[in-house]
Amino acid sequence: METLKNVKQRVYKFGDKTADGNSTMKNLLGGKGANLAEMSAIGIPVPPGFTITTDVCTEYNKLGKNEVVALLKNDVEAAVANVENLMGTKFGSNENPCLLSVRSGARVSMPGMMDTVLNLGMNDNSVEGLIAKTGNARFAWDSYRRFVQMFGGVVLGIEAKSKEDHDPFEEIIYKAKETKGVELDTELEVEDLKQMVADFKDACTAQTGKAFPEDPWDQLWASITAVFDSWMNPRAIYYRGMNQIPEEWGTAVNVQAMVYGNMGNNSGTGVAFTRDAATGENIFNGEYLINAQGEDVVAGVRTPQQITLEGSKRWAILAEVSEDDRKTNYPSLEELMPTIFKELNTTQNKLEEHYNDMQDLEFTIQDGKLWMLQTRTGKRTAAAMVRIAMELLEEGRITEKEAILRQEPAKLDELLHPVFDGDAIKAAKVLAKGLPASPGAASGQIVFFADEANKYPVSILVRVETSPEDLEGMNIAKGILTARGGMTSHAAVVARGMGKCCVSGAGNIQINYKTRIMTVDGEKLKEGDWISLNGSTGEVYEGEIATKDAKLSGNFSKVMKLADKYRTLGVRTNAETERECKVAVEFGAEGIGLCRTEHMFFEGERLMRMREMILAEDETGRREALNKLLPIQRKDFKDVFAAMAGLPVTVRLLDPPLHEFVPHEEENQKEMAKEMGISVEAIKQKVSDLHEFNPMLGHRGCRLGITYPEITEMQARAIIEATLELKAEGIKTFPEIMIPLVGTVKEFKLQEEIVRRIADEVFAEKGDKIDYLVGTMIEIPRAALIADKIAEVAEFFSFGTNDLTQMGFGYSRDDAGKFLPIYIEKGILKADPFQVLDQEGIGQLVEMGTTRGRSTNPNLKVGICGEHGGEPSSVEFCHRIGMNYVSCSPFRVPIARLAAAQAAIRD
Amino acid sequence: METLKNVKQRVYKFGDKTADGNSTMKNLLGGKGANLAEMSAIGIPVPPGFTITTDVCTEYNKLGKNEVVALLKNDVEAAVANVENLMGTKFGSNENPCLLSVRSGARVSMPGMMDTVLNLGMNDNSVEGLIAKTGNARFAWDSYRRFVQMFGGVVLGIEAKSKEDHDPFEEIIYKAKETKGVELDTELEVEDLKQMVADFKDACTAQTGKAFPEDPWDQLWASITAVFDSWMNPRAIYYRGMNQIPEEWGTAVNVQAMVYGNMGNNSGTGVAFTRDAATGENIFNGEYLINAQGEDVVAGVRTPQQITLEGSKRWAILAEVSEDDRKTNYPSLEELMPTIFKELNTTQNKLEEHYNDMQDLEFTIQDGKLWMLQTRTGKRTAAAMVRIAMELLEEGRITEKEAILRQEPAKLDELLHPVFDGDAIKAAKVLAKGLPASPGAASGQIVFFADEANKYPVSILVRVETSPEDLEGMNIAKGILTARGGMTSHAAVVARGMGKCCVSGAGNIQINYKTRIMTVDGEKLKEGDWISLNGSTGEVYEGEIATKDAKLSGNFSKVMKLADKYRTLGVRTNAETERECKVAVEFGAEGIGLCRTEHMFFEGERLMRMREMILAEDETGRREALNKLLPIQRKDFKDVFAAMAGLPVTVRLLDPPLHEFVPHEEENQKEMAKEMGISVEAIKQKVSDLHEFNPMLGHRGCRLGITYPEITEMQARAIIEATLELKAEGIKTFPEIMIPLVGTVKEFKLQEEIVRRIADEVFAEKGDKIDYLVGTMIEIPRAALIADKIAEVAEFFSFGTNDLTQMGFGYSRDDAGKFLPIYIEKGILKADPFQVLDQEGIGQLVEMGTTRGRSTNPNLKVGICGEHGGEPSSVEFCHRIGMNYVSCSPFRVPIARLAAAQAAIRD
Repeated sequence: METLKNVKQRVYKFGDKTADGNSTMKNLLGGKGANLAEMSAIGIPVPPGFTITTDVCTEYNKLGKNEVVALLKNDVEAAVANVENLMGTKFGSNENPCLLSVRSGARVSMPGMMDTVLNLGMNDNSVEGLIAKTGNARFAWDSYRRFVQMFGGVVLGIEAKSKEDHDPFEEIIYKAKETKGVELDTELEVEDLKQMVADFKDACTAQTGKAFPEDPWDQLWASITAVFDSWMNPRAIYYRGMNQIPEEWGTAVNVQAMVYGNMGNNSGTGVAFTRDAATGENIFNGEYLINAQGEDVVAGVRTPQQITLEGSKRWAILAEVSEDDRKTNYPSLEELMPTIFKELNTTQNKLEEHYNDMQDLEFTIQDGKLWMLQTRTGKRTAAAMVRIAMELLEEGRITEKEAILRQEPAKLDELLHPVFDGDAIKAAKVLAKGLPASPGAASGQIVFFADEANKYPVSILVRVETSPEDLEGMNIAKGILTARGGMTSHAAVVARGMGKCCVSGAGNIQINYKTRIMTVDGEKLKEGDWISLNGSTGEVYEGEIATKDAKLSGNFSKVMKLADKYRTLGVRTNAETERECKVAVEFGAEGIGLCRTEHMFFEGERLMRMREMILAEDETGRREALNKLLPIQRKDFKDVFAAMAGLPVTVRLLDPPLHEFVPHEEENQKEMAKEMGISVEAIKQKVSDLHEFNPMLGHRGCRLGITYPEITEMQARAIIEATLELKAEGIKTFPEIMIPLVGTVKEFKLQEEIVRRIADEVFAEKGDKIDYLVGTMIEIPRAALIADKIAEVAEFFSFGTNDLTQMGFGYSRDDAGKFLPIYIEKGILKADPFQVLDQEGIGQLVEMGTTRGRSTNPNLKVGICGEHGGEPSSVEFCHRIGMNYVSCSPFRVPIARLAAAQAAIRD
Repeated sequence: METLKNVKQRVYKFGDKTADGNSTMKNLLGGKGANLAEMSAIGIPVPPGFTITTDVCTEYNKLGKNEVVALLKNDVEAAVANVENLMGTKFGSNENPCLLSVRSGARVSMPGMMDTVLNLGMNDNSVEGLIAKTGNARFAWDSYRRFVQMFGGVVLGIEAKSKEDHDPFEEIIYKAKETKGVELDTELEVEDLKQMVADFKDACTAQTGKAFPEDPWDQLWASITAVFDSWMNPRAIYYRGMNQIPEEWGTAVNVQAMVYGNMGNNSGTGVAFTRDAATGENIFNGEYLINAQGEDVVAGVRTPQQITLEGSKRWAILAEVSEDDRKTNYPSLEELMPTIFKELNTTQNKLEEHYNDMQDLEFTIQDGKLWMLQTRTGKRTAAAMVRIAMELLEEGRITEKEAILRQEPAKLDELLHPVFDGDAIKAAKVLAKGLPASPGAASGQIVFFADEANKYPVSILVRVETSPEDLEGMNIAKGILTARGGMTSHAAVVARGMGKCCVSGAGNIQINYKTRIMTVDGEKLKEGDWISLNGSTGEVYEGEIATKDAKLSGNFSKVMKLADKYRTLGVRTNAETERECKVAVEFGAEGIGLCRTEHMFFEGERLMRMREMILAEDETGRREALNKLLPIQRKDFKDVFAAMAGLPVTVRLLDPPLHEFVPHEEENQKEMAKEMGISVEAIKQKVSDLHEFNPMLGHRGCRLGITYPEITEMQARAIIEATLELKAEGIKTFPEIMIPLVGTVKEFKLQEEIVRRIADEVFAEKGDKIDYLVGTMIEIPRAALIADKIAEVAEFFSFGTNDLTQMGFGYSRDDAGKFLPIYIEKGILKADPFQVLDQEGIGQLVEMGTTRGRSTNPNLKVGICGEHGGEPSSVEFCHRIGMNYVSCSPFRVPIARLAAAQAAIRD
């Protein structure tokens, strides 16, 4: 209910459990102003004050200072009078002075970008008033000193003369302490502070050429206009540019009565939560300190006390404090100030009821009176997030949809992986920090070679980078640490697929394979030493740290069921092994969106046969090797199809360049030569022939199937034979055969022809048939552009957004580490586009591909199988553009389910 | 003027210098039918006949054989009667039989795809008639034999029983010769041919179970329907699919009286050109043979004679034939058959006048009567193309626009580079074939190392591939041959820029740098051996071959002036050196569209300083090295700007990844270590640090300028200082500073800020200013997608279609050699997308980028600087989407000017 322009209200009052505004008026009052109004309006004791609207900021920039002050004069004077009235104070009074804070407050929080003035109203007269009121001269003079310093810096613009000079105020403080021979501010006495106020004022006059304003009204108007000015300061402009906040929004100005928790033993300050932020338990809790300011609670110098008696007792047990000691030295607020506690408890109930969510409260007790300074939705752990929402739902306080929207999907990750034991981790020493490549926590003994992963009972594989040859060892190791590679490096992708903890790209680690030593900032760790990884934060710790498995609560599965009720987007998984399939199905996957067949060739005999094929001189030789691969691949498909029985499985034909299957290190080449009975030179020659300048853009994907059609034939045969064998066993399969890296219609057609021809051959041989689809990955920009033509022949699309991002941005994910971090730091990119789908650019290709594809083939099945399929904002995008499903690694399936439900609800 | 549906004319007659149709009716009569009608209609003596329309083909496919034969019966009978009447022949006559040809003829030529029947009308009766008429029993029976064989194969479908069997007709001929003990068909006698006809008929009966049709009408209907059937044969369907010819077009059927040039010494056959196809000279010329069929002229067994006396005399001189010998054995048609010659000469004049272009004619003289079989626009050399068009224009026979449209822009290349001497090349031995990477011809002695290019007076640099370090040597060598790399490999791109002959990717060449020997199919060539390259065809020859320089005729510059009159698209050049600039300006370049600054760092001291910068530990070190580069770069810019004085110059800031500036071979690393006074290990470490998996998608372009802003600063300063110094010298410059590889708005803004800040600094230092633009290359797919946003801040766009093609297709141009040739062979791609812009896919990005860019910045200057800027169909595309200019290598500037003019005229 904003006022009409022609009867414009510029000043909105709040306080005394009433307010002109409310929380819906954020655009006009700013976030802080609207919230203060709301609290006051629902009867919460908020220090009284008023908000000058954001509209006035726009007027200010248009009309200038004098005009706007004139426009505001009457309203502001009335509003200040109201504050004086409610607080029983008077501006400049030498008995009970009115002291105010002046703060900015835009629609959205812009932390630290604009200016604040506290203790406004202090002058030589009111300092006496404050002494009179509090009986605490030191407190009063210190407040005065702080005011002059803040007003001087913020409003008068007092600053160091040059980069080399010191801030004049800091200079004065430094000299005062030096003169007195003390070290701490607190050691200064009243007389020192008095002198300091005088010196501060002189410093102001020296720079401005004017006397420091004594009149509180002059102080107020100067502060209000300073806040408006700060909207246009370079810092704020830069911040707005970064965060795309329009200049027209403007900032509001909040003027509010000061309250002090440090006025003596009848004062105090604290923070509280309406429920337990760690567990979600419905229990009021919090901490406070007597005769203290907010920062004292946070600073940790004094031990904060518990608000509730129950909390206090729990705390005493953990802290090993006796009940006597507790009662004497750390009594709860409930015991110490039962009336205040009662009011606080009522207030917290009221606030939680009002906002229908767990609240994080700040309060101050000034001279026996409780003031609420702030309430906001409390931060919480994933476990608490799930529990609180489900309990609020059960209490009938929120709807199912609200309960779903209350979840942060990405946070669920915390619940799905082991974590470090809370106490153990506190003592641990951080060795290095890399990228949080695959979540979870792991401790183990260092091994540097994949084939030695089982040298210790629990190992951590440490490599410069991993390669497909390391697959088996990666599977054995408890965790993986690499010195190079990003969030989508081989190590990262494989680890996420395995649900194994991984830290990648820890750049300050040097590894010497020969000496089997890794060096971190000069510290050496050798093979067999214990380290621990936190794959959710990227931290690498020295030594062994106890971990505990994640436990999925009943509330978790309730949330998931609820999500399934609302979502319309399907959720599949990217999986190649029986084990991954099982995990995924447990987590609710409705099929496989991406089964990378090459992962089936990376170990043991399969790798040997693959190499045999690569080394073959001609088609005949390749076919011989492929014939040996056929039964192996068929068996693999049978395992996967059986694990996913009744669900669709999208099988991608061979994708990576062939050089990934041959060894690049001489030692391995020698081994291979011995195994295959050929010369090392022949192998070196082949490896050199297979070398590519940009393998990412080279001979891979369907380009392999087109140059070596026999590979496609073998794979098609393995798939179809596997399905028919399962059919004979009574197991249903729904294979979807996917041609990778298609960029032209003809590529697809040529590969599709092979698949269908082989399928018909197998059907004829076995005298039975099954249904299957042939579709393609859309991962080349050109494919998205001509999607209408491809969809005329393809039965489904799966967007390979990893490659689409690589090609659309021109970023090699293996190399982007050299500039991506800088790009994110400089705000060129808001997020790593390999983690969060770039909706502005790459998203256009995805949407275009979907729309154009459906324009010629309305029944086209469309999904996504890039890493983004498990990232909440990307999942929402996929829902919005009408995809049929997303596919992600098994451990992200619950996240995708939730994100899909949220998208459906928001839609 | 097609007939209305309800009074549909199905049969169009022609002959006796009149016709029902004309050349505008290609859709209805097919190409051949329309042309025959046109010739006849303008009074040319064409063997009479008729065309059954393409509409009937569609009816045929819908209604079937019987229905359509019934529909056609009356009209075809009347048309055959007309032929009989005009030729004085009679179907099946034993005195003067009517013999016909039946041919398909679609809208567009589909060579070899459909069927033809000749000598139709032969049977046991008419063979006697043919003998009676010609007195040549052997000719008559041979014609009969040929008819049965052709009709049997085409109409009755007689073929070998299986792959292993022989064609039954060939089998009979083989046996007949074996029995008789002769080797050549011509050694068979009348009786043998009679027996063969009988055996052929038996073979037909054996396969069809029916007697061979004797009735000419049965033969005719069967042949007509066979032609319609051939429209739907698999070969034709495949061909249509490849060439996107719709099935609905159908084929016409042309039935025409047979004429024979081999009926005796009063008969003959020949081909003629209305002007000289090699030089364009306006002189009638051609060759003929007495008593011969068309194939005899082409076969080269007998020496063809000249048509004109003048031509005959010229020929005798070249062939060293005495005038007596000539007159006796090789008289001209003008001498031998003056009346026929006169008629032919009148006819050729008429045809050239009618078609207003040089014609290529086929004629047959049957028993003293001239028949014209075909006329078509004659193929010609580039020189002839230019001369003929300009002379026709001067003769007032074609308009300026027509003269321009008559040019094939790509052909101009022939005129701009040296070519092999015509006679010398005939004897040369082709060693290998690679890609025609940069046109021209060159002979020289083999060197294998760039720094040894001046070891011989004229050298050819032979490398596996070239790198930036080879630049100087490439400049010295006469030509460049590489074993690897495509049309846009380093060697190819640099060579085209230099206008130097280059053959790249000659895959069957093996080079051994140690022994300094290259091996081609077992043959060894060593350093110092002579080889020759044809960069226009990709051929590599053994030995030295004489070359001659291209001479630009006056007609050439007339054509160019004419092109400039009509074109609206600007033409700039890609150039970095003074020399290139001068060539380009001579060829008419209107500015530089791409000046690649990195090319300025690849040699001598520049490279040293560049390496110093790369090796620097920190910003200070980099700045020191850059300070040394500044004067060098400033000087380079001054040279380029001065060479292009008064014209705009687009300077691209540093683009390639830094590893291109460091040596990768150990020997060179050692040398560099020595030069720079640091350890080889340090260099190896740096090279390894700079290594990228996919450098194409790595740390390059503006990503360098963002991570190392000091590079951008130095380059901006060099550009601005150069312009101001030139201004002081009175030389005008129009620099356009181009930020490469932009994918986000912020990248552009950050780099633009640096450029403008430095410019302002330099302006302040020098107390003077100049105008300049800051724009960007659009070469990343994402940039095209968000072009509207980029254009809000950029002043110009230049499409880097090389990289756009690489990323849009996902093809690394350095690696695509492994599959691109196969892709073109299989029809997946119609052309190499690095040579011909892929309008279907990548073109969408270019058009989108242009349209979106202009949507927010209507004054946006838009150009293209990829290789495509000099390719005619791509230039036309650029014109169509409204670009301001194209930019191409200096030697392609004329081609672009012409293509732009054609595009404007066609528009």
